[in-house]
Amino acid sequence: MRLNRINNNDLEAFRLMVGPDRFSIGESVLNLHSKDQSRHSPSLPEAVIWPMNASEIAEILRYANEHLIPVTAWGSGSSLEGNPIPVEGGLVLDFSQMNRILDIREEDFQADVEPGVIYKDLNKKLRHKGLFFAPDPGADATLGGMIANNSSGTRTVRYGSTRDNILRLSVVLANGEIIHTGSRSSKSSSGYDLVRLFVGSEGTLGLVVEATVRLVGIPGEFSAAIVTFPTVESAGRAVYEIIRSGMNPSALELLAPECIELINREHELGLKVAPTLFMEYDGPSVQQLAELLDMTKEICEEVGCDEFRPGLGMTERDRLFKARHELAEIIMRNHPGCSHMAIDIAVPITAYPEMIAMAIEDRKNSGIPTYIFSHAGDGNLHIVFEGKTGDEKEWAVIEEMNERIISKALSMDGTATGEHGVGIGKRRFMAAEHGNSLEWMKKIKTLFDPNGILNPGKIFE
Amino acid sequence: MRLNRINNNDLEAFRLMVGPDRFSIGESVLNLHSKDQSRHSPSLPEAVIWPMNASEIAEILRYANEHLIPVTAWGSGSSLEGNPIPVEGGLVLDFSQMNRILDIREEDFQADVEPGVIYKDLNKKLRHKGLFFAPDPGADATLGGMIANNSSGTRTVRYGSTRDNILRLSVVLANGEIIHTGSRSSKSSSGYDLVRLFVGSEGTLGLVVEATVRLVGIPGEFSAAIVTFPTVESAGRAVYEIIRSGMNPSALELLAPECIELINREHELGLKVAPTLFMEYDGPSVQQLAELLDMTKEICEEVGCDEFRPGLGMTERDRLFKARHELAEIIMRNHPGCSHMAIDIAVPITAYPEMIAMAIEDRKNSGIPTYIFSHAGDGNLHIVFEGKTGDEKEWAVIEEMNERIISKALSMDGTATGEHGVGIGKRRFMAAEHGNSLEWMKKIKTLFDPNGILNPGKIFE
Repeated sequence: MRLNRINNNDLEAFRLMVGPDRFSIGESVLNLHSKDQSRHSPSLPEAVIWPMNASEIAEILRYANEHLIPVTAWGSGSSLEGNPIPVEGGLVLDFSQMNRILDIREEDFQADVEPGVIYKDLNKKLRHKGLFFAPDPGADATLGGMIANNSSGTRTVRYGSTRDNILRLSVVLANGEIIHTGSRSSKSSSGYDLVRLFVGSEGTLGLVVEATVRLVGIPGEFSAAIVTFPTVESAGRAVYEIIRSGMNPSALELLAPECIELINREHELGLKVAPTLFMEYDGPSVQQLAELLDMTKEICEEVGCDEFRPGLGMTERDRLFKARHELAEIIMRNHPGCSHMAIDIAVPITAYPEMIAMAIEDRKNSGIPTYIFSHAGDGNLHIVFEGKTGDEKEWAVIEEMNERIISKALSMDGTATGEHGVGIGKRRFMAAEHGNSLEWMKKIKTLFDPNGILNPGKIFE
Repeated sequence: MRLNRINNNDLEAFRLMVGPDRFSIGESVLNLHSKDQSRHSPSLPEAVIWPMNASEIAEILRYANEHLIPVTAWGSGSSLEGNPIPVEGGLVLDFSQMNRILDIREEDFQADVEPGVIYKDLNKKLRHKGLFFAPDPGADATLGGMIANNSSGTRTVRYGSTRDNILRLSVVLANGEIIHTGSRSSKSSSGYDLVRLFVGSEGTLGLVVEATVRLVGIPGEFSAAIVTFPTVESAGRAVYEIIRSGMNPSALELLAPECIELINREHELGLKVAPTLFMEYDGPSVQQLAELLDMTKEICEEVGCDEFRPGLGMTERDRLFKARHELAEIIMRNHPGCSHMAIDIAVPITAYPEMIAMAIEDRKNSGIPTYIFSHAGDGNLHIVFEGKTGDEKEWAVIEEMNERIISKALSMDGTATGEHGVGIGKRRFMAAEHGNSLEWMKKIKTLFDPNGILNPGKIFE
């Protein structure tokens, strides 16, 4: 189905739907909605609307569907695979004004939110109730963006990804229909699980306008440790041994020396520049955590760590988490004139040491600035390459490494994307990863959005 | 689409596909595959096949799809809502010979299994490796049946339902196509989540022929307690207070006195006949568990419990779990000449005390044998009514209570079925629960199975 450009009649129609204050075709606004934090080329939308509620969005989609106008949802633009870039132009719906926390039912461990809520703001609001929403992708991600990409982060090793923490969704479909799916019960066997179908669908099946999220109690006690190793490989082996021991850390992050150097510089952390594991346990009692750290220390020493530094205070831990969350941005800032490629593979934990070794080898051979860090406890490995923008030779090398690493991960029963989503950059790996089930994903797409107006050009090639 | 009866040509074709040993039209075989453990009327299949592998099933489905012959998958027949009853006749595929554990990758906490594996057998095999598959519906459920119904059980409050513990599926679709979906990575944001779409679809979208399941380490320490209360309502309030405290028990079961009486009689447990909570904590250290039980005791005493008996030994705990798992069967055995209706609502935990109160009130008014027990920690309440088979007056009363209780649960944002699935018995509540998202479930059904040959007459009216 060929999509249309927005003509003057359409512009007028859209403007009338929401009024002039929440509609823009201004150049700077279009520019702001033309790219995310990825290397992918910007693409301008033709108009931006800030919707306020489901019925407005329903009206907009009915019109867009009838006139074959692309519609792409926009959270905070923090995604890393071009997920919200309006590659076919059309309309961008910026959800930043649908940012109300509608209800917090603390005794049910649930909150109802609009998609424009930034998850950090939700957690600020929840803190004095002793609760939090666990998935933490870093950046200023919105709940809507997190739902679209099934985002996760440092605490996913313990608390799951966004998909595991969503109970109920209200969604506007391409035809303007509003549906509610899921329930507020913590479990259900009632019909097909549409909630988890929409989570991770990157705005290609429908637009989420409200979500009921699951909350978690803030644990009584935390205990964090920093461990340095002689090599990234040995740190990787320690990760594998910790996970297979079943000790269930609440964070288990690996940072290669080049990452430590950067966060030292920007956050004055004074960490030893070495392959580093940053780990955290949480639980109800100090003694239990001390036991866990003792067992972890034993494992790390057997693998041959250099230094095991337990008992990080809350302040130091918070600074470290903050630095870790900002790492991707820090890397970008430190390479002006470069574009970056972020690998996001995830593999079964037994395959993890081999993936690390491969990344190290590739870096050695290429000479291109490469940053290795990972949500190691999930087998989720990030490798960020910084290539000079426009340097075709360098980018050919990066593309080749990207291809090799992802193919290797797939051959080990892993996935091309652990948490960033498919967007633009991972589309070409979908056939290799999913085989003919990819065709069934396309059929589901066509079922929900027969004209292909919702976030066209994503997930599928 | 009108489905066909199996004619002699079809019979011959099916027989040739698998050979005479794994094909039957014998009366006793057909009878054995005509009903599950529910009250729903038996319905005979016209033939039964015991398939051995995916390609056989693909061939069978291609033929059945072309000739519009109903095909219903069969695990162990332990379901409670008529889920596998072949209401339109046709072919039953009995998976009992596809019961191989294909691979246990203990260091990845994963196993690959065929659908006919009984979960208890898997757990027996895993025990000496210190691992287990957490969902525990009781009975002799097969993995395939558990996947079909998104089954759960006593430990779901801690470890999730079947849906949360499946990573990857191989599925034969109605047209005979074999697809593989998901990966062996513990997390992924790669395309639409077809795995969780198939889990809970009750064999209506495709037939699972292989699954990669997530395993959990057997915790180092357990501590269990039995607590009695003056009323079921006060026990229900204690459940609510324990859950909202965030203490995360690994089991939190409520049993009304009539259930205690039955399991005492059958298992000689000598328990006090009173409203009872049976709870368990697990974790790495004895001291941590002692602390949790102390906090739980405080809560129960504040609510006004009669007796708090902590420190149950492993033997007593195992006997209690066994009795709890067999409870549904014990109830049935004790009411010869009766049929039973099993309510399986689940609600947000704040709504739980009110649901309990309503059930008690209904029992008082009706005079019909009623058993109240529940996976209380999940807000999942079972109420089993035993009505004389064929007694229309009694059954009208039961139907009315069923209707009232489910409607109440839905009005409190709960679900009509927490773990038994929709099958036949909960179909008529689907419209009320899902609104117009039910139409989208139907469209997905039609997409995957346009002729409607897979388990016809289930989920949808």
